[in-house]
Amino acid sequence: MTFSMADKAHQAQIASRQLARLTSSEKNSILNRIAALILHHEDAILAANQLDISAAQQANLASAMVDRLRLDRSALEKIAQAVNEIAGQSDPVGSISKIERRPSGIEVGKMRIPLGVIAMIYESRPNVTIDAAALCLKAGNAVILRGGKEAINSNLALAKCIEQALQEHKINPDAVVVVPDPDRAIMNELMTLNQYVDLIIPRGGEGLIRFVSENSRVPVIQHFKGVCHLYVDDAADINKALNILDNGKAQRVSACNALETMLVHKDIAAEFLPKAAALLKQRQVKVHACEQSLGYFEGATAATDEDWHAEYLALEIAIKIVDDFDAAIAHIDLYSSGHTEVIVSQDYSRAQQFIRSINSAVVMANASSRFSDGGELGLGAEIGISTSKLHAYGPMGVESLTTEKFVVLGDGEVRA
Amino acid sequence: MTFSMADKAHQAQIASRQLARLTSSEKNSILNRIAALILHHEDAILAANQLDISAAQQANLASAMVDRLRLDRSALEKIAQAVNEIAGQSDPVGSISKIERRPSGIEVGKMRIPLGVIAMIYESRPNVTIDAAALCLKAGNAVILRGGKEAINSNLALAKCIEQALQEHKINPDAVVVVPDPDRAIMNELMTLNQYVDLIIPRGGEGLIRFVSENSRVPVIQHFKGVCHLYVDDAADINKALNILDNGKAQRVSACNALETMLVHKDIAAEFLPKAAALLKQRQVKVHACEQSLGYFEGATAATDEDWHAEYLALEIAIKIVDDFDAAIAHIDLYSSGHTEVIVSQDYSRAQQFIRSINSAVVMANASSRFSDGGELGLGAEIGISTSKLHAYGPMGVESLTTEKFVVLGDGEVRA
Repeated sequence: MTFSMADKAHQAQIASRQLARLTSSEKNSILNRIAALILHHEDAILAANQLDISAAQQANLASAMVDRLRLDRSALEKIAQAVNEIAGQSDPVGSISKIERRPSGIEVGKMRIPLGVIAMIYESRPNVTIDAAALCLKAGNAVILRGGKEAINSNLALAKCIEQALQEHKINPDAVVVVPDPDRAIMNELMTLNQYVDLIIPRGGEGLIRFVSENSRVPVIQHFKGVCHLYVDDAADINKALNILDNGKAQRVSACNALETMLVHKDIAAEFLPKAAALLKQRQVKVHACEQSLGYFEGATAATDEDWHAEYLALEIAIKIVDDFDAAIAHIDLYSSGHTEVIVSQDYSRAQQFIRSINSAVVMANASSRFSDGGELGLGAEIGISTSKLHAYGPMGVESLTTEKFVVLGDGEVRA
Repeated sequence: MTFSMADKAHQAQIASRQLARLTSSEKNSILNRIAALILHHEDAILAANQLDISAAQQANLASAMVDRLRLDRSALEKIAQAVNEIAGQSDPVGSISKIERRPSGIEVGKMRIPLGVIAMIYESRPNVTIDAAALCLKAGNAVILRGGKEAINSNLALAKCIEQALQEHKINPDAVVVVPDPDRAIMNELMTLNQYVDLIIPRGGEGLIRFVSENSRVPVIQHFKGVCHLYVDDAADINKALNILDNGKAQRVSACNALETMLVHKDIAAEFLPKAAALLKQRQVKVHACEQSLGYFEGATAATDEDWHAEYLALEIAIKIVDDFDAAIAHIDLYSSGHTEVIVSQDYSRAQQFIRSINSAVVMANASSRFSDGGELGLGAEIGISTSKLHAYGPMGVESLTTEKFVVLGDGEVRA
């Protein structure tokens, strides 16, 4: 029997109704069982993973790519632990924040419910298969997982653990669909199935995300890039600014919450920039500096407009001296990717104005941009980071995989 | 100078930043001034409206269409009053629901902010121009209004009131863009401008909504149709059921929250259906009945699968006898448009199970589907009704035109 994406998506929609009606303890029991089965089936999973690794090596994939694919006992333990942690989080489904009585006599509330069917389109990391399935199941959603072809054997082996856990709990197995054929045509078809699929979350490179968001008829939550700004105000505590610069730029350069641009108030530049230069030199960070700040940095290159747009994801940073607070806001308004922006200032009004004025997904005063992460912000596990404002903005946890319906309780009322 | 949609959308995005930073009283003052100017410029608006009416009559438009276009003093008073009511509603922007301290020491909250730039694509009613602009401004958004060509003179005359109010308050006039040329090509271009526009809300016939949602790269909130179900349980209070049927089907047949299908438990059919038949006969409602119920209704036709999908928007109803509660749920799962569903039952568990199980945008126990409306549910004025689950589900008020950003307050914390 050939695989039909439309058919499977329809079946997933039917299965989603059963999931939406499960209690929290039923869902948690499934999740805990998935975690146990991942460890129980270690040998089969690692053997399947070995097939992917060998194929990747034969195809001469870059070693970083091969590393991303690789699973071992310790990786499986981490994956299983993450699933148990998701089981331990609170369940948003079914909660009603408040019920109000209306003049007509009816009582009106909003109840949180699952979105329905969520499709994940992702690249090579096999752990996404389990992470995404666990988060979607926790929120009562069916999920369609379309991973990269490099990880297909690993993904199918992991999917067997999910399938077994669902079966043991008498859940319709179409609640979690792992697309067995990572063909482009199937992905393209998936993006047209808006009658069955409620949301697509692409995870991977900018090319993949752009392709999905430009071609999908199903709503897409997108995260293009993080061009995070640090603004060092003239009222900044210089030690805080240095720590936040160091942590933001050098701790993990490949993260989307790493710093890419630093704006410095002109009145603090002479005191702050030499210290910043020493720090960046020690951390081997290449500097792209504006004309006024160029002299502070040995070996720096002159920043161009491209640098203000750049997400380096490397030990590089763009630095600009600004005349005042408003100039910093104007620069961020122009170049922000909507991800995370930070002010360092001891001035109360300035910090408050920054927090209010900048409408990026995460706005911070006196804290490292590296905190812009689901776990650090208190959401638990993260299914993605949205830089578009609709539905969810910023790091997305389980609650972002739900919506709210209106509940009306009457006693025979009709409309006048 | 020719009109450039891309350019104007970009200018609207720039203007949106100023709007996002206004206080509630500044926004309310603009709204109250718009209301006053609509009455002040009555003559000019009615003269412009007369141009549209004459053109429509010359083009032999149906008289219902011409009526939808027509403005008079009383219509303008209602429009102005609606704007003042929107000004009087509470402002969601800037509110933070709670701030929590994280283990790292940072404090994390979520602050409500405007979406940015909202585009409305609508058909002939000129009051939408003011309603939509007022709701978008209240939430701090810039708005692009693309109305139908039949109402273009009326829309431009109303837009002048908005322009004057913005100017008097020193607001960038691109905060409200009325597209002067309702050409299809301009609408098509608008739908590609996802770098500037955050949300498109189409209002009008199903054809328009489908066209926009299938072709837009900007996120769309769609409301296709309302196939609202009434389920009369065997534990129903028959008088409540009759009142809710009467109100739901006959009060306003053209509304999307009118009833289209009634499901009746087989054990109450013999008692309830003769009374329902008398009521529907009195109201001149045409009945499409299932095989088992056909005998109860004089002049009824046999229901086909098409009837279970139908949004009649007329004095017609589809009626089906179901074996039990589960069969009612299964029918709704299959045919629901995700709008509004009602159970009439005095059985506590049955009502609760219905409320939990049905994930339409509005789910009711013992109340008329006609309450499924922004005003009745307590949202104030309504900008649309979403039957897709992302971002907003059901009637949308001012809060649906906002999103939330994360706010992080630190004192120099960095990530470990």
